[in-house]
Amino acid sequence: MIRIAIDAMGSDQGSAMVVEAVRTFHAKYPNAQLYVVGEAKEIAPLEGLATLVPSTEVMGMEDGALDVMRRKQTSMLKAIDLVASGQCDGVVSAGSTGAFLTGATLKLKLIPGVQRAALMSPFPTMDGKGVIILDIGANNENRPEHLVQFAKMGAVFATKIRRIEQPAIYLLSNGAEAKKGSPVGKEAHALLLEAEPTLFRGNMEARDVLSGHADVVVCEGYPGNVLLKGMEGTAQMMNHLLKQAFQQSIFTKIGYLFAKKGLAGMKEQLDYRKYGGAMLLGVNGVVVKGHGSSNPYAFFNAMRLTYEMIDAGVVPAMKEAMSHESTN
Amino acid sequence: MIRIAIDAMGSDQGSAMVVEAVRTFHAKYPNAQLYVVGEAKEIAPLEGLATLVPSTEVMGMEDGALDVMRRKQTSMLKAIDLVASGQCDGVVSAGSTGAFLTGATLKLKLIPGVQRAALMSPFPTMDGKGVIILDIGANNENRPEHLVQFAKMGAVFATKIRRIEQPAIYLLSNGAEAKKGSPVGKEAHALLLEAEPTLFRGNMEARDVLSGHADVVVCEGYPGNVLLKGMEGTAQMMNHLLKQAFQQSIFTKIGYLFAKKGLAGMKEQLDYRKYGGAMLLGVNGVVVKGHGSSNPYAFFNAMRLTYEMIDAGVVPAMKEAMSHESTN
Repeated sequence: MIRIAIDAMGSDQGSAMVVEAVRTFHAKYPNAQLYVVGEAKEIAPLEGLATLVPSTEVMGMEDGALDVMRRKQTSMLKAIDLVASGQCDGVVSAGSTGAFLTGATLKLKLIPGVQRAALMSPFPTMDGKGVIILDIGANNENRPEHLVQFAKMGAVFATKIRRIEQPAIYLLSNGAEAKKGSPVGKEAHALLLEAEPTLFRGNMEARDVLSGHADVVVCEGYPGNVLLKGMEGTAQMMNHLLKQAFQQSIFTKIGYLFAKKGLAGMKEQLDYRKYGGAMLLGVNGVVVKGHGSSNPYAFFNAMRLTYEMIDAGVVPAMKEAMSHESTN
Repeated sequence: MIRIAIDAMGSDQGSAMVVEAVRTFHAKYPNAQLYVVGEAKEIAPLEGLATLVPSTEVMGMEDGALDVMRRKQTSMLKAIDLVASGQCDGVVSAGSTGAFLTGATLKLKLIPGVQRAALMSPFPTMDGKGVIILDIGANNENRPEHLVQFAKMGAVFATKIRRIEQPAIYLLSNGAEAKKGSPVGKEAHALLLEAEPTLFRGNMEARDVLSGHADVVVCEGYPGNVLLKGMEGTAQMMNHLLKQAFQQSIFTKIGYLFAKKGLAGMKEQLDYRKYGGAMLLGVNGVVVKGHGSSNPYAFFNAMRLTYEMIDAGVVPAMKEAMSHESTN
């Protein structure tokens, strides 16, 4: 039995979006046991499809790490608690990232051997294969050993969920040569050569992470966050310019009508909503963070990702992989 | 009189590309005094348009920081030497970035008061205004005080070359709130509030650097390099997908023909070649690094940028601005 806790509140689009996603999800995965936490009146339409857990407070988008533990009645904390108490196996929320990551880490605790949890997200690549990148922002500062653990955790995910037997792991750097990198990255490079002699393929520049050569890219949380958001901002700008380009004249507008179908395919390939969300790896439980601006389709995919991770036993596999790690 | 030293060798396209660019440049800026350094036979066609300085070695693209000072006969080092000796005011090269930055820094020396040179590049923005970002990779590791200096140097450039009287300066961070940032970034934030109380506007996420709100974005060299290359990689992927989208069927191909003109405008707006190159700020002389894959148009623009920086007195203005800095 797969049991998922769902924070119905706190996203940009509010609980109605979640209610719709849960409805669709229940139709496709009738065997999953769903716990929906939120304002009683707002989640009432899900009566009969899910176990409803009333909560009276909502974590705001601006609420951060410090607020989450103080505000005991929020839907977010209550949803996390369902996993901490063993009633559920995974939790999904589209609320404040900072609050969710802190709450999940403090309540669920790190897997024995894991020194730092990491936020991981799948990205589309040029060849359509996709790549996962971690840490994209759970940490502000990392030691070289953290990056080695991120590589191990990323490999478990790539094997279990993406079914890649020998995932190619790269280390984000400012050059492809082994001697390049931040001070932390240089040390991590040496450690990775020892710890992952077959899977680790060396350094990779940010320019190449979407090329399809890497299955897993590991990085420190701060530059990882810059990478993630730099890519988002560039895609946003190009979409904006593309729209402008098609609106320039009657000819470009006609051109758009002809090319529409091809462009829709491109949009689909770039659509982050397809990927569902980012995962917090390294904690005792499946934790999936949906995008704050999720629509029902995106939130459905975040739920599906949670389902798949529980089903594939990602957390037990992570525990097994990390059981030989020292905990200093 | 504006005197420019040109390294004719070491780019992906070789000296013929530079020869063509110099010819065009000379026609448009006949009053500039050009010194072209390179293989005697290859630069011979420029006889009469420029002072030709023969060199027998070429710095390879793979040559790094350590090679540059050892190999005395390279066109790159000889071109830098023309500035070091006072014969020229600026130097431009499309050869190895690592070698060029190291050579220029060691030979030209830092401006008194400057602790670290920074690599700066202009980027296109959503609103067409553009933004400059520094450091995009001259440094691997920075102290908070370096970022304050980068802000000052960026402001001088924005005022002198982009003619923005009160440039809006932002600090790259993993969140817009003041408390966000890398450990170095957090300290830099506090220092910037003191040093630049009117121009400094706070933190900015990587997602927003192309929004047009900032005139200058300062960052540590390592995440700055990740940002630059992450943006390049995303643009590359989107161009690739766009091409694919238009080739999908006879309809999308017709669509492309109609939309072509609008799309060309978008391409033009994103074209890095228009910007000419990146500048090394903080050294005693104008130093412009053209893209390794420059075509004659891009190299012409790199030369024009060098010309404009000399003409506007960027280095003297930088000296003035940095003269009150302590040198610890």
